[in-house]
Amino acid sequence: MNKNAPIGVFDSGIGGLTVAREIMRQLPEERIVYFGDTARLPYGNKSKDTVIRFSKQIVRFLKTKQIKAIVVACNTASSYALDALREDEDIPVIGVINAGARTAVASTKNGKIGVIGTVGTIQSGAYNEVLKELKPDVEVFGKACPLFVPLVEEGLFHDSVTDEVASRYLSVLKEKYVDTVVMGCTHYPLIRSTIARIMGSDVTLINPAYETAVQLRTLLRSMEMNCDEGQELTLDEKYQFYVSDMAEKFRDFATSILPEEVKKTVQINIEEY
Amino acid sequence: MNKNAPIGVFDSGIGGLTVAREIMRQLPEERIVYFGDTARLPYGNKSKDTVIRFSKQIVRFLKTKQIKAIVVACNTASSYALDALREDEDIPVIGVINAGARTAVASTKNGKIGVIGTVGTIQSGAYNEVLKELKPDVEVFGKACPLFVPLVEEGLFHDSVTDEVASRYLSVLKEKYVDTVVMGCTHYPLIRSTIARIMGSDVTLINPAYETAVQLRTLLRSMEMNCDEGQELTLDEKYQFYVSDMAEKFRDFATSILPEEVKKTVQINIEEY
Repeated sequence: MNKNAPIGVFDSGIGGLTVAREIMRQLPEERIVYFGDTARLPYGNKSKDTVIRFSKQIVRFLKTKQIKAIVVACNTASSYALDALREDEDIPVIGVINAGARTAVASTKNGKIGVIGTVGTIQSGAYNEVLKELKPDVEVFGKACPLFVPLVEEGLFHDSVTDEVASRYLSVLKEKYVDTVVMGCTHYPLIRSTIARIMGSDVTLINPAYETAVQLRTLLRSMEMNCDEGQELTLDEKYQFYVSDMAEKFRDFATSILPEEVKKTVQINIEEY
Repeated sequence: MNKNAPIGVFDSGIGGLTVAREIMRQLPEERIVYFGDTARLPYGNKSKDTVIRFSKQIVRFLKTKQIKAIVVACNTASSYALDALREDEDIPVIGVINAGARTAVASTKNGKIGVIGTVGTIQSGAYNEVLKELKPDVEVFGKACPLFVPLVEEGLFHDSVTDEVASRYLSVLKEKYVDTVVMGCTHYPLIRSTIARIMGSDVTLINPAYETAVQLRTLLRSMEMNCDEGQELTLDEKYQFYVSDMAEKFRDFATSILPEEVKKTVQINIEEY
């Protein structure tokens, strides 16, 4: 296994770029191959079997790029497909659920944790399971927020409609007096300020992207698989972006949230893998 | 060609059932094979090439059921893929755009027509093109309403959030004094009352589903391809439903809007076609 090989990162679309961004910040020497399944997004309202099938196709594609590890940068795919991917693969696979859950458990004082996410993430019970493994006496309150993704994709970050929808979704968590809320969907940090204002300043919001990059760094070091420092790579060699549709729109969005301009995004037919 | 063969009807998901329902009402002797691409929905924000590729896969599947005609019951697929499908096929292919456009042209008095739909339907300019072919001096004002589908799928038919979003989207059409609005997405008739209230009682709303069934009847009669009357078929023989994901959820929704209970929905892997 080549320690200078890239890390494969995937998501149903653009949301996972928030995870890629954290990896770029915390592990600046690592190479990344990112795949966004823009032809079949969103995953949040699809079945477990379908999300597993899509995830396996994506991993087969990423492995053609000789990756050394896989980051499932999508909460729905992490909830449904992580075990299935790990069974098949000979390289490490990490998701966003564990990282988010660990931070939440470390943060809560009253033992009441809220989790917001897609219908798939909440129905899977994945956060609930991991949180209770880490700390059996926590109380976990899940709430699916299916309109958050379309509202974010419409750019309504600071808007009365988003305020109203968020107030309704979050009221059940406020009633339970949670002191910690996991933003269990990679789109949600983009409306963090709205969620924070509604939940109030006593509630800690957890963004699993940050902790996922910490976990990846620890893993690579423990396996002595981190990249050599001081490699001379162009940006195109270092970070590669692939999508299943709308390459140009993706590239523009990626440029808007990543530290460097994304010059190239390649569209592939993921169904062939 | 067998005149008692079924008609193939497809959509990205559930919306096309409103077209299937009209066919059931107006052509009660016809058999239908419906396919909803629930694993890859929505189509509205995907590229033309991808929508054409998906549509061709679906037609290949439907043809395994010996259909005699195809109804593209999805505005985005009708906008992007109709010409490509017609080139390939030896059986008639009809979409929802022509039907909706014809009714709109017949309805307008001041020649100002609004069209609302997905990003794909509006960007394609398909309604604009057909409307101007039918009546060159009409003025067409398109407005994409990307939040309508998620709001409908959340069941917010009569809700202050839907009112607010609809007011914003429709204000540009009100400013142009359109007297006719085409509901160019099969989900929109489900929030017809909200759209009607905002546009006002002087504005006619067009639902292309009705007119599509009229066009299908005319076509079948002109080809002498309509089913024999008085066939003894069970409901399962008459109407078949296939999806690419979430068969049970689809079946429940179909039962809620169709005149008869849907007992069976079969999930297939559309990517194999």
